[in-house]
Amino acid sequence: MEPFTDLSCLSLNQATTQRWSLREAVDGCARAGIPAIGIWRDKLAESGIGTARRLVRDAGLRVSSLCRGGMFPAATAAERQARIDDNRRAIDDAAALAADVLVLVCGPAPDKDIQAARAMVADAIEQLAPYAAERGVRLGIEPLHPMYAAERSVITTLAEALNLAGRIASPQVGVVIDTYHVWWDPYLFEQIRRASGLIFGFHIGDWLVPTPHLLLGRGMIGDGVIEFRPIRLAIDAAGYHGPIEVEIFNQAIWDMPGDAVLELMRARYLEYV
Amino acid sequence: MEPFTDLSCLSLNQATTQRWSLREAVDGCARAGIPAIGIWRDKLAESGIGTARRLVRDAGLRVSSLCRGGMFPAATAAERQARIDDNRRAIDDAAALAADVLVLVCGPAPDKDIQAARAMVADAIEQLAPYAAERGVRLGIEPLHPMYAAERSVITTLAEALNLAGRIASPQVGVVIDTYHVWWDPYLFEQIRRASGLIFGFHIGDWLVPTPHLLLGRGMIGDGVIEFRPIRLAIDAAGYHGPIEVEIFNQAIWDMPGDAVLELMRARYLEYV
Repeated sequence: MEPFTDLSCLSLNQATTQRWSLREAVDGCARAGIPAIGIWRDKLAESGIGTARRLVRDAGLRVSSLCRGGMFPAATAAERQARIDDNRRAIDDAAALAADVLVLVCGPAPDKDIQAARAMVADAIEQLAPYAAERGVRLGIEPLHPMYAAERSVITTLAEALNLAGRIASPQVGVVIDTYHVWWDPYLFEQIRRASGLIFGFHIGDWLVPTPHLLLGRGMIGDGVIEFRPIRLAIDAAGYHGPIEVEIFNQAIWDMPGDAVLELMRARYLEYV
Repeated sequence: MEPFTDLSCLSLNQATTQRWSLREAVDGCARAGIPAIGIWRDKLAESGIGTARRLVRDAGLRVSSLCRGGMFPAATAAERQARIDDNRRAIDDAAALAADVLVLVCGPAPDKDIQAARAMVADAIEQLAPYAAERGVRLGIEPLHPMYAAERSVITTLAEALNLAGRIASPQVGVVIDTYHVWWDPYLFEQIRRASGLIFGFHIGDWLVPTPHLLLGRGMIGDGVIEFRPIRLAIDAAGYHGPIEVEIFNQAIWDMPGDAVLELMRARYLEYV
């Protein structure tokens, strides 16, 4: 299996350096020779879209994703509409940043009816696809680990995300694959093959044993049990050659100096991915 | 949807009343009018198999399961053999107790190769099936929630468990379905239909929001987000009419008096299942 020998595909997802502002993250990427960044909307709101555009352009950074749209299911039609409207704003921002993809974390059910919530997700993405197409923005449905099904995303497997994308059948709609969410899936590799042409983003993070925390327990590449290289090669074989974002929600990593995090993730990326 | 009006299918899995010995649990079931019990091997070891047999027989209790066999993958052939040998002893105990099923929690990988671990699971169950057949013991593969993939079970979905059972193709080998582990699955209901004839056990427990703990965070029926009745009806429609075991690993429930736990689970069972 071929390791990477350069950093040309590496991207820093801002969730990995939670304490850094967008400006600090952009500067950090420039210092570390990391050519792309995944931007979070809360960080974007702090700096403003105009400043953000200027920062990434001046640094010569590619925006590998905007995180995140989604959160579609809601108890009332008015609230669902408000969320669609918010996603239109996210699409506008993704267009302004020329982001490769707007990542969709689809949201939990407002009640016990998870199947109804899944239908709300499909309806919302169908409504958003033409708007995204007009602005040249791609929407990436990210299946989240099933342990987040009740609080973050009713879309839980790559198979389900692909079925959803297939149902919507828009060239704007594909999937984002994050190792942390899918590594356990017994049918992962056949689903990656099936995803050919629909992979709009690739995130990596490790699964720690034991998992220290449900939300902030993701691990630095190489610290956990995930075999990255076979997954990366399968995604490569499926035709995705774009940025690989390191996205790690972990308090201990957040407490490290940002430059040290970037140095570590560069080394681990070259070693394990 | 038809609720239950009696307790004839209810069973207490001993994990729900962790502080009770087997004798206390048997007595508690008798007091509460619960006709079946799922027994754990550590509790069985405390009382001894002879005493255990006498206790359940004298109380007129059905043994709905013995928990648990499994834990098959290991780094060396000798260790894998030791685990198979231990499972033979579990089969002997299940036979002695006339348990409906020996629940198999298949175990984690000894390294990063989860697919190899899955093959070890298949090999082990294939070896055990004839032994189980000779003793009239059924083996129930229990898919565990994917969040336990690295520490408890590489078998993570009902589809995977059914594929595994289908590959072994022994009348002794089927599945155990636990709502806590499978509720999130977008293809749950089609897999339950597919499981017809292979369902050897049915466990229930709720998914709390937020989940307080990865291992001890399961919820009392009705305290979480799982809709039990549609799942129960689907399992009924698939031809399973056996015991329904309440299995809840939760420190707060363990800290309650056992009789209060049984009273609560009876009421919730009648209301929600």
